[in-house]
Amino acid sequence: MNHPTPAAALARRPLPEIVAQTLAARFGDRFTTSAGVREHHGRDESPFPPEPPDAVVFVHTTEEVAEVARLCNAHAVPLIPYGAGSSLEGHLLAVAGGISLDLSQMNRVLAVHAEDLSATVQTGVLRKQLNQEIKDTGLFFPIDPGADASIGGMCATRASGTNAVRYGTMRENVLALTVVTADGRVIRTGTQARKSSAGYDLTRLFVGSEGTLGIITEVTVRLYPQPEAISAAVCAFPSMGDAVRATIETIQLGVPVARVEFVDALAIRAINRHDAMTMAETPHLFFEFHGTEASVREQAETVQQIVAEHGGQGFEWATRPEDRSRLWNARHTAFFAMLQLKPGCKSVTTDVCVPISRLAECVTETEQDLNASALPCPIVGHVGDGNFHVAILVDPAKPEEMAEAESINRRIVERALAMGGTCTGEHGVGLHKKAFLVQEHGEDALDVMRAIKDALDPNHILNPGKIFSAAR
Amino acid sequence: MNHPTPAAALARRPLPEIVAQTLAARFGDRFTTSAGVREHHGRDESPFPPEPPDAVVFVHTTEEVAEVARLCNAHAVPLIPYGAGSSLEGHLLAVAGGISLDLSQMNRVLAVHAEDLSATVQTGVLRKQLNQEIKDTGLFFPIDPGADASIGGMCATRASGTNAVRYGTMRENVLALTVVTADGRVIRTGTQARKSSAGYDLTRLFVGSEGTLGIITEVTVRLYPQPEAISAAVCAFPSMGDAVRATIETIQLGVPVARVEFVDALAIRAINRHDAMTMAETPHLFFEFHGTEASVREQAETVQQIVAEHGGQGFEWATRPEDRSRLWNARHTAFFAMLQLKPGCKSVTTDVCVPISRLAECVTETEQDLNASALPCPIVGHVGDGNFHVAILVDPAKPEEMAEAESINRRIVERALAMGGTCTGEHGVGLHKKAFLVQEHGEDALDVMRAIKDALDPNHILNPGKIFSAAR
Repeated sequence: MNHPTPAAALARRPLPEIVAQTLAARFGDRFTTSAGVREHHGRDESPFPPEPPDAVVFVHTTEEVAEVARLCNAHAVPLIPYGAGSSLEGHLLAVAGGISLDLSQMNRVLAVHAEDLSATVQTGVLRKQLNQEIKDTGLFFPIDPGADASIGGMCATRASGTNAVRYGTMRENVLALTVVTADGRVIRTGTQARKSSAGYDLTRLFVGSEGTLGIITEVTVRLYPQPEAISAAVCAFPSMGDAVRATIETIQLGVPVARVEFVDALAIRAINRHDAMTMAETPHLFFEFHGTEASVREQAETVQQIVAEHGGQGFEWATRPEDRSRLWNARHTAFFAMLQLKPGCKSVTTDVCVPISRLAECVTETEQDLNASALPCPIVGHVGDGNFHVAILVDPAKPEEMAEAESINRRIVERALAMGGTCTGEHGVGLHKKAFLVQEHGEDALDVMRAIKDALDPNHILNPGKIFSAAR
Repeated sequence: MNHPTPAAALARRPLPEIVAQTLAARFGDRFTTSAGVREHHGRDESPFPPEPPDAVVFVHTTEEVAEVARLCNAHAVPLIPYGAGSSLEGHLLAVAGGISLDLSQMNRVLAVHAEDLSATVQTGVLRKQLNQEIKDTGLFFPIDPGADASIGGMCATRASGTNAVRYGTMRENVLALTVVTADGRVIRTGTQARKSSAGYDLTRLFVGSEGTLGIITEVTVRLYPQPEAISAAVCAFPSMGDAVRATIETIQLGVPVARVEFVDALAIRAINRHDAMTMAETPHLFFEFHGTEASVREQAETVQQIVAEHGGQGFEWATRPEDRSRLWNARHTAFFAMLQLKPGCKSVTTDVCVPISRLAECVTETEQDLNASALPCPIVGHVGDGNFHVAILVDPAKPEEMAEAESINRRIVERALAMGGTCTGEHGVGLHKKAFLVQEHGEDALDVMRAIKDALDPNHILNPGKIFSAAR
């Protein structure tokens, strides 16, 4: 292992009695220290063993969040925002103990501004719920990480997903936030206007800060008109390199493809089993095109031509909505399908993103590296962004498998950094990518990040131990 | 006047002799205290009287910037980055004296990554120069404020322009920066990859920080494939409200229009005179469509239909490249054309941006307000973004005209804020919008901005007095 285990990172201090008493008196049965609830809140989808918090508080309003923050700040008690529990890098583990702040009951869509193509939601609203609630407006919210994550959590990790190649990530799609600071003040960042030059971009600072700078309680997101026409297709390739090169050419030509997803042979096998599908077990690209009828037809023709030049075969359309939905549902549940390749396993999931000119090289070298491992390592990727994931399937009880996974992960990250890329395209740093940040940003840039952390959370109560260890 | 005059804002301290001597010895004739050069560096396109710095240093490299920063920081000397001098809100005025750091000779395009659709440039590269140098790659850089601004300056003010409705602003189009911190360290933010979740978004923090958090010396920007087809058109409307409502409908339908610009009757008169054009002197929309031949035709048909429903007349095409270029050149020089409506005048330029659902109301109320003033007040706007500019033409020597202009400006800003908008869509705060930031963001959010300023520039040497007065 090339980084300390989470548990070793920070010393735990017992929860001060006065904090427990105050919260119990204020929140009644919305405050709990039950072992089951604490255990559930001390883990995420990462392979790390749970680190339960000392207690969990279920909040309903921004003002309640502010109350809890003021109390925790006064007593230097760690405070960990909890949304849907779907993060992948150990973000929710209470490595220094403290309070898990469960925001999942803050789940109301507060306002849909259909004319402005935006909506304001409470932080715990899930992405599917949002799309369900706005369906009749003719609009949709495009950002779709695999899991049905909360909008606040997606802000915190700067999430993206399959649509980012066309619609951007959470970075581009959040207009405004309500945030509770470490000392319990409520601030609003951004406005309802589409753009602004009025001072520092606090919205973008909190997006991607992983709960370490403030607690996001409300979010105004951009929405988009549902396209007049949508078509989707899958296509098999002789090799990974061919599929990636077809993607690169599509992007460089400026085809406004809505989705282009890579799925390798092993991941196809997992999907076939999990979703009773019958795709050939070779590398595939999944495409989706959005636009007018004419524009979708034109995009698809261009892409079919590119695909053919790269050996792609059997461009197969999913034209009916139910076929499309089956296809993309299979892609979205690929993570869970892959886990079933190895019963009882967990996934150490890599998340590098490289400049697209280096993507074929990066994927091909990675494939060669993975061939040398005995661990099953299916690959899926948002290749239009230069971002791909290797799910390294391990038995977390076997230290040699964990060590092997970490060593593969380290090599993939170092390869990506050497190519001008990043260690994480969309999952965030959490506990698991901390060791790579110096290499990616340099010590001075990390110092600037730490200076901001010190300025906004001087007692280091907010999600301590995540992104970087605050102590220098 | 509703805010202190710039000169009153901060006390000046003479430049320490040791700083002048050190810089003279190090930079030779690239260090100057000549009155003419200082005067030139103490102003911008705002109506404020110049505030010359004590000296000007012309730098050539990031390391030279770092040297100057270390020296100034050690002696608490103000340091004001200077690019092309085209800012509009008093950004360059040396209200506390100090050194103007002229970056205009850092003007090399360092690398064009055509395959990755990006380029890395030195901070002083001008936007037209960049497009000229990359012409043969088939790519272009879309962000186009009226002036031929420097890329670094455009980062500093989070600039946008006519293409933002399709391509976004500097917020969306900067991938990575090299920045010199107040204490003279060189940091790199972001990577060459399209997206990242690796820590705080320092890139977006420096973009829009107006030289108050660090000095941007290199920028990696996104480029786009030159569209296969481009068509442009102008169209006259019976009233401002009609033109704005046609725009709103275009945006809400999701037509991917590349440009949609509003020009009012008085601005049309100014352009006709300045550019020897013969448009009817009524409100106009200027459109541009980018895409494939078929997609451009389809977009134009949709928009023509919308325009007709809102009383638009004489949809006139500029199909030949030279006609298109004449049209957009007229739009880009509109600011200078408008200044000629009143010989010897300066412009107090407003820059509000509102949610598009409120745009017609905001523009119409503003028009009624302007009708009551004796000052000429032409209006142009990036209406697709909800952003418009009133150029309030004043004789800066007449205090009553300045007061009248400020009072119009204040009413426009208050109207926009009440509608959920921002006091500045793209020009930045500088000296001129400081008074509105509390109203827009609230005291607590401003405190968070000040905390970041204190953390990154504890001696307050970087462009002091801009965005907010650092002292609380």
